[in-house]
Amino acid sequence: MSINEHTSKQFDAELEALRARVLQMGGLVEEQIKLAVEALVTGDFDLCSSVEANDHRVNGMEVSLDEDCSTIIARRQPAAGDLRMIMTVVKTITDLERIGDEAAKIARMAKLIGASDRLMQPRFTEIRRMSGIATEMLRKSLDAFARLDLSASAEVVRQDQHVDDEFRGIVRQLITFMMEDPRTISASIEILFIAKAIERIGDHAKNISEYVIYMVKGKDVRHVSVEEIEREISN
Amino acid sequence: MSINEHTSKQFDAELEALRARVLQMGGLVEEQIKLAVEALVTGDFDLCSSVEANDHRVNGMEVSLDEDCSTIIARRQPAAGDLRMIMTVVKTITDLERIGDEAAKIARMAKLIGASDRLMQPRFTEIRRMSGIATEMLRKSLDAFARLDLSASAEVVRQDQHVDDEFRGIVRQLITFMMEDPRTISASIEILFIAKAIERIGDHAKNISEYVIYMVKGKDVRHVSVEEIEREISN
Repeated sequence: MSINEHTSKQFDAELEALRARVLQMGGLVEEQIKLAVEALVTGDFDLCSSVEANDHRVNGMEVSLDEDCSTIIARRQPAAGDLRMIMTVVKTITDLERIGDEAAKIARMAKLIGASDRLMQPRFTEIRRMSGIATEMLRKSLDAFARLDLSASAEVVRQDQHVDDEFRGIVRQLITFMMEDPRTISASIEILFIAKAIERIGDHAKNISEYVIYMVKGKDVRHVSVEEIEREISN
Repeated sequence: MSINEHTSKQFDAELEALRARVLQMGGLVEEQIKLAVEALVTGDFDLCSSVEANDHRVNGMEVSLDEDCSTIIARRQPAAGDLRMIMTVVKTITDLERIGDEAAKIARMAKLIGASDRLMQPRFTEIRRMSGIATEMLRKSLDAFARLDLSASAEVVRQDQHVDDEFRGIVRQLITFMMEDPRTISASIEILFIAKAIERIGDHAKNISEYVIYMVKGKDVRHVSVEEIEREISN
């Protein structure tokens, strides 16, 4: 599974362990999004507390993975594909930690809104659908990282446009809703920020997928179009 | 100015050049925020086009600095303080690029709002004040990076709470404003997202300051309180 062939089995094992821990962090972060959105929809505030407690774990994993990357660089002096893999990990965990932050924000806002607000129920459905897409993007980007899967990466980049469209749709609906009934303005603004948080999660998943393409192809595709990315990976 | 003493003058020069280019990127990004907010307040759409054009330069600088960091790691096999400096650059340029993205978003939203909306003038004043603080934080975090200034870093972390308070104040005012006159809802939502973008810029400046503390002290302070940071840097 390593991009570069090298003789040190110990080094291989270290890289493999690093990769496994990134996936573990990613799994936890994915769970955080689900719990936070579930807290919003069901009004189960115990879930909010779980998300807050887990956020410390996410932060700790970021710090510890960053340390591991620096240690491996200092000790192993990696080059080429190995170095790209480690730099990908350094970038990926920053995005994962920020997804974790967004999940924690959603949990905090869920508390403020409360499920008692029946008027907001139709909005919750939209939020759940949008977060379903963002979560799928995250899972797919982590799979792409694990399996060096370029076509999954390109799919995530494309899906991000979908999340952005959903976001704009929710904003438009909320504006109509607020105009029709100004009493809903406060709660609508909270929903708006939750939608924004999910849109950001989509962006972070897209970033991770772009790092994976860099890791595998050695080509930085962060600021190029989806079409160029698809041309790049078909080479 | 180097944290570690080493014999290679060439290596020193490379690190110095790297540092200078980060500061140059930071200067450009700071300018982008100013132009974007100026575009909003004055309704000068030519400024929006400048921001959009410069955003490509910001992106290009990120990609090229990332490449340089990988090249230096592969060739020079840095350790200790030098490696921390390079990892700090890798993280810092990601935050700078994202500040650039937020500036570009502000410029795009400025176009949508248009200065013709006189009702929004008082909000522009608040946005300008808030962006003044965020820009100062960015400048201070870059100065801290250049001069390895820990107390400036701690100041930035503290100032971020100030930006967050300003943000919450603007949100409250916008909600009141929308309730009093629902015709302002659409434009208020745009202003809300602009305020959110500036709040994010403050977060990124705070991140950079925390990396500087890591670079100098070797201690990761990303997820600790301001008080702990102040204790840490006084050691």
